[in-house]
Amino acid sequence: MMEALLGDTETRRAAESARPDTHPTETLARVAWSIIAEPGDGVAGALIEQLGAVDALQFALSKQHLSEKAIDEARKRWMPRAHPRSVTEALRGATEVAARLLLPGDAQWPQALADLGEHAPAMLWARGASHHLSSPNPVAIVGARAATAYGESVAAELAGDLAATGTLVVSGGAYGIDGAAHRAAMGAGGATVAFLAGGVDRAYPAGHQDLFQRIQAAGAIVSELPCGAAPTKWRFLARNRLIAALGAATVVVEAGWRSGSLNTAGHASTLGRPLGAVPGPVTSAASAGCHRLLREYDAQCVTNAQEVRELLGMTESAPAAPESTNPDQVRLLDALSTRTARSAGDLAARSGLDAGRVAAILGLLALEGIAQRTDAGWQRVPM
Amino acid sequence: MMEALLGDTETRRAAESARPDTHPTETLARVAWSIIAEPGDGVAGALIEQLGAVDALQFALSKQHLSEKAIDEARKRWMPRAHPRSVTEALRGATEVAARLLLPGDAQWPQALADLGEHAPAMLWARGASHHLSSPNPVAIVGARAATAYGESVAAELAGDLAATGTLVVSGGAYGIDGAAHRAAMGAGGATVAFLAGGVDRAYPAGHQDLFQRIQAAGAIVSELPCGAAPTKWRFLARNRLIAALGAATVVVEAGWRSGSLNTAGHASTLGRPLGAVPGPVTSAASAGCHRLLREYDAQCVTNAQEVRELLGMTESAPAAPESTNPDQVRLLDALSTRTARSAGDLAARSGLDAGRVAAILGLLALEGIAQRTDAGWQRVPM
Repeated sequence: MMEALLGDTETRRAAESARPDTHPTETLARVAWSIIAEPGDGVAGALIEQLGAVDALQFALSKQHLSEKAIDEARKRWMPRAHPRSVTEALRGATEVAARLLLPGDAQWPQALADLGEHAPAMLWARGASHHLSSPNPVAIVGARAATAYGESVAAELAGDLAATGTLVVSGGAYGIDGAAHRAAMGAGGATVAFLAGGVDRAYPAGHQDLFQRIQAAGAIVSELPCGAAPTKWRFLARNRLIAALGAATVVVEAGWRSGSLNTAGHASTLGRPLGAVPGPVTSAASAGCHRLLREYDAQCVTNAQEVRELLGMTESAPAAPESTNPDQVRLLDALSTRTARSAGDLAARSGLDAGRVAAILGLLALEGIAQRTDAGWQRVPM
Repeated sequence: MMEALLGDTETRRAAESARPDTHPTETLARVAWSIIAEPGDGVAGALIEQLGAVDALQFALSKQHLSEKAIDEARKRWMPRAHPRSVTEALRGATEVAARLLLPGDAQWPQALADLGEHAPAMLWARGASHHLSSPNPVAIVGARAATAYGESVAAELAGDLAATGTLVVSGGAYGIDGAAHRAAMGAGGATVAFLAGGVDRAYPAGHQDLFQRIQAAGAIVSELPCGAAPTKWRFLARNRLIAALGAATVVVEAGWRSGSLNTAGHASTLGRPLGAVPGPVTSAASAGCHRLLREYDAQCVTNAQEVRELLGMTESAPAAPESTNPDQVRLLDALSTRTARSAGDLAARSGLDAGRVAAILGLLALEGIAQRTDAGWQRVPM
């Protein structure tokens, strides 16, 4: 199964040609993951995190029975997509549009995506000057497709000012606010990145074909889905988490009461990223979502680029780490108490993990502020 | 001196006629205070609080030398205003325009003003249906004189909805937002109160003469200054504290970057009253002050009357009590420690106050949350 999926000699050559610095099996395994798992699939992410992309794929595609229900369920999602030629076709599609394959660990790979934990993408497909993805402190500017002239003008004002002073402007390439932000960033001679919900070979919306062409010259269009993948409702929502994670701050310019931008804002908030909202007339439905962010999400009111820059200094000290599903971590968390301090030996006995693994996971948990060492031993930090 | 100030037999009769339920000396003393002390004079307030209006006035006007510098300084402010005929003239002026004299302790006296501590007014002069002053949960709606059509329309929307549902709308009678709020409250058949910075016999601004006439029918126009007093810059600022104190919540609809409404908002904030700000276009200078309140004063973003009603449920538990300048209190506060508990006897010895006075002040300080009784004795509560 795995051999069929990872392709023939020609496909391995294509992988080597696309990523001469990476072992082709690793490249092909990550391409396979980007095909078989939907964006944000936490089971896939946890498996890759724990076993590496290659072994995780082997494990995922084996027929070996497991008592683990989550994995069995996930296999039912993955298997129907593991067509023998899909990896070959994805690589061919990328070559045709000169899309680059970005892998975690690359110099261009945005470190910020690690905050997504097991919901981080297995890889990214990018067209254009993808090195901009690793710019320091990018700002995400998002908002309603049905924007008003006021909203587009404010988005352009903010994006233009930020881009002119060297800040990467990240958005979703949609009509309305997104488009205004991308255009103004380029107009100011700055860089901009658009995260797409479908493959980077597909211009969606079609009316932004020219815009995407221009963005590839001044930055990049990026997706975690392979070429040919259609944008779906789910993929739009999942794409929003990448915008929020890449942005060192997210600013919503205009948004209706139930706008998709509130989803991006929610992701930014969950990730502990500072969130700004641009106010507007209370009589404008296009600003209702922004006012909701000010009232319900504790967003900061921002009225100009300087205030967005101030927002960048406001990163919360402890980003809300997504709950881990790494099985060893879960076992160790179960062994930890919030009230009683326990020695590492005691925790090894309770969790059934060996001492080395316990020490490694405790270190990680301490770093994430989930566990702490006291004089009497280790304790879980109450949330 | 005091006899000359408090007037002749005719003046005493006028006082009795204006306030048949109150001893004329008390009435006249409070009228005298409203003449000789500027609004918000904390030394006058502390003196009245401690001695009562009559004894405080006697003390203020006596030539008895004191080592207390604050009192000596205050006398220099008060004395030049203690013209023999001023009380008589103030009463005559009030009678001419049928202005009522409201004294602390009256059923109509708004309890909320007590939160101003020694900065509370000695009395109020009111024209119209002054019983509205004691309505539960009034809402202060204030804003820029140079309001836009947008601002006036939102102010009218909020005030009209609130007034229609029985909420007293408090404002400052100025052009722009204030006027729109008063008008809409009356238009909805509700009640409204305007606090003026000068005497209630003076229509200021003059263009609001008709508006003030209408307000007297649907509510009241109120001032702490006697008839004939001119509105000054200081009096406008001092008047703002009365609006903020009477309002169970204060909402700023439009305000420039340095608008006087921010002063009202600051008072509301200091008093622990919930503060709302209506957002507007970031391109509108008339909304810059509101956005500043959202950013710097932690104001809540409000977009409709329902959100103002929600604001009313948000009163902070402990209003920030203005620092007391009552000399005995200061002596007792010096004797109290935040770390060491001390007996009442010890405190009497340290402060040089007698045991009864110590007990009385300790009770007051405990009530204000400034001191607390522990098992070991009395301590000052750390701020």
